[in-house]
Amino acid sequence: MENNKYCVIMAGGIGTRFWPKSRQSMPKQFLDILGTGKSFIRHTYERFEKLVPPENFLVVTNIKYKQLVLEHLPELKEEQILCEPIGRNTAPCIAYAAYTLLKKNPDAEMIVTPSDHMILNEDDFRVIIRECMEFAAGHDAMLTVGIKPTRPETGYGYIQVSDNQIISKVKCFTEKPNLELAQTFIQCGEFFWNSGIFIWKVNTIIEAFKKYLPDHHQLFSAVLKAQTPEEERNIAETAFSECRAISIDYGIMEKADNVYVRCGEFGWSDVGTWGSVYQHSRKDRYANAIPQEGCYVYDTRSSIVSVPKDKIAIISGLKEYIVVDTDDVLMICPRSEEQSIKKFIDEVKYHNGDKHI
Amino acid sequence: MENNKYCVIMAGGIGTRFWPKSRQSMPKQFLDILGTGKSFIRHTYERFEKLVPPENFLVVTNIKYKQLVLEHLPELKEEQILCEPIGRNTAPCIAYAAYTLLKKNPDAEMIVTPSDHMILNEDDFRVIIRECMEFAAGHDAMLTVGIKPTRPETGYGYIQVSDNQIISKVKCFTEKPNLELAQTFIQCGEFFWNSGIFIWKVNTIIEAFKKYLPDHHQLFSAVLKAQTPEEERNIAETAFSECRAISIDYGIMEKADNVYVRCGEFGWSDVGTWGSVYQHSRKDRYANAIPQEGCYVYDTRSSIVSVPKDKIAIISGLKEYIVVDTDDVLMICPRSEEQSIKKFIDEVKYHNGDKHI
Repeated sequence: MENNKYCVIMAGGIGTRFWPKSRQSMPKQFLDILGTGKSFIRHTYERFEKLVPPENFLVVTNIKYKQLVLEHLPELKEEQILCEPIGRNTAPCIAYAAYTLLKKNPDAEMIVTPSDHMILNEDDFRVIIRECMEFAAGHDAMLTVGIKPTRPETGYGYIQVSDNQIISKVKCFTEKPNLELAQTFIQCGEFFWNSGIFIWKVNTIIEAFKKYLPDHHQLFSAVLKAQTPEEERNIAETAFSECRAISIDYGIMEKADNVYVRCGEFGWSDVGTWGSVYQHSRKDRYANAIPQEGCYVYDTRSSIVSVPKDKIAIISGLKEYIVVDTDDVLMICPRSEEQSIKKFIDEVKYHNGDKHI
Repeated sequence: MENNKYCVIMAGGIGTRFWPKSRQSMPKQFLDILGTGKSFIRHTYERFEKLVPPENFLVVTNIKYKQLVLEHLPELKEEQILCEPIGRNTAPCIAYAAYTLLKKNPDAEMIVTPSDHMILNEDDFRVIIRECMEFAAGHDAMLTVGIKPTRPETGYGYIQVSDNQIISKVKCFTEKPNLELAQTFIQCGEFFWNSGIFIWKVNTIIEAFKKYLPDHHQLFSAVLKAQTPEEERNIAETAFSECRAISIDYGIMEKADNVYVRCGEFGWSDVGTWGSVYQHSRKDRYANAIPQEGCYVYDTRSSIVSVPKDKIAIISGLKEYIVVDTDDVLMICPRSEEQSIKKFIDEVKYHNGDKHI
């Protein structure tokens, strides 16, 4: 029965928020921004390896990252990497994986996970995922994992539970609330962050595609008819180019009535900003998150420094700054200005083209 | 008669004050820190090229910079580069050049110049040098060029004139006064900065060596007996390893009574610190001295930025900083802390060895 359990890693993100460290040629999931010794995608793989055998993983990624995925996850065979010719948000990505799994094994039970999140307490996390898989195996249900919120974050999606069950039916999804609403959510206690981790039987999600995203169903179900890998690639190419970009949350989860959430606390972070990297990094006594070697700081505090390995950094007189140095881009900016990175990228792109992006 | 005029460029400096931009392998004289398109040594050569024919130049430098000199001054032949096996300050350097010239041409008239200074008004400067050469040709005199001081600089040597003649006898030399004394010097009006540029007949300086630095005379006059370039190299090697390190100012100029100074204003700077580079650089409207291309600044003022060509720099929220980025070292420090560079170097040296120095 173990063979019915599959893990789909979504790894198509471009990840500009960590520019200049993340690049279009090297997005966040392939980086070790926290200095753990392993990339995010490697951590993700190892997290689920204890639940799912290596041959039951699928990674959906952009065609240009296929080789990177194989380098980071040498356990996988080439046919386990599904390539998106173009990013179309999570629904098409999941549709591609679901129809591929359906073809392989109609009894497949499917975990879907982002490739670039951090989870500190992996044992606790796996207990929760096992519970979800058990529930999904016995019910015609779509499960998502909710995170107990620790701050009124406006950049996340929120899930409202309808009862106090361990696995609760979802009352409502709210994408990126304003600060006031987020504060109300926190106080209320019924709201949880949407981790973007899903668990369901492949048949259940296929049924949902048929019902809520019939165009996607039509386009991606063509995968079932493919006779050769080449045919399958062509079908995927057509499907991605013709389908509408839409998230699984917006396209299915918010509309379906068999959606459940298992909330938990297991040291989760999407590590979506330099601020969050700072928060999760080891700090020196002046609260600086700096490389352990080759970085000399004077009169500097609460700053985060990232420089290439073997490079020396001398930092004097910075308070609450982000310093990111790469081979071709140096960025110095106050931590309070991290949302300006998009503006920086746009300006560099405008003047210098895509070379440094 | 033109053939009697020689120019000796002293280019042995290691130049750590511009670290990490200047390196032991690439000292300041070979850099274009001000972004003029030419290195300091190239500017120096071209400055004197209108006074002295190319074959009458000598460059005294450390053996390890010989190839660099030939690259920057391809007009020179190998035998015009005199190599110091070890730096021993200016007196041995000048002795080596003087005895070499004496051997070549006993009627030689000699200009001695540092290789890493900036002179903005080169025409005015050459008028002064010509006057000095004329004076030196007709007198048994050692001339130095004095600069009208613009601030009570404590890092320079000062020359006190004894009268108001255009070429005045020197009353007194004072090396690096404290601030109070420097302020008195400025107010007094009789004191000028010592530019380290000297003009004399080779016979005059040789006489001075005999009289004031007889050990140096003995060691370096052996050059006269050398039959082959190899013999000469061996003699120089012995002389440098045995002689005392001493400056020409301290060893001769302060003691001799035939020392004159020609004071002038011609936009001189020794460009000895990042502050001085900042001062002489073109600034944007927020007083930033930044590269013309590839540097994007936000909420940043009065800062100086140096990054490798083709590198992108994004600088946000810095006021009065120095940012110097090189392939293997990044330095960020307040302009007011530039004297800490020596401390930075020491710390890097202690932990990482000479690799980055």
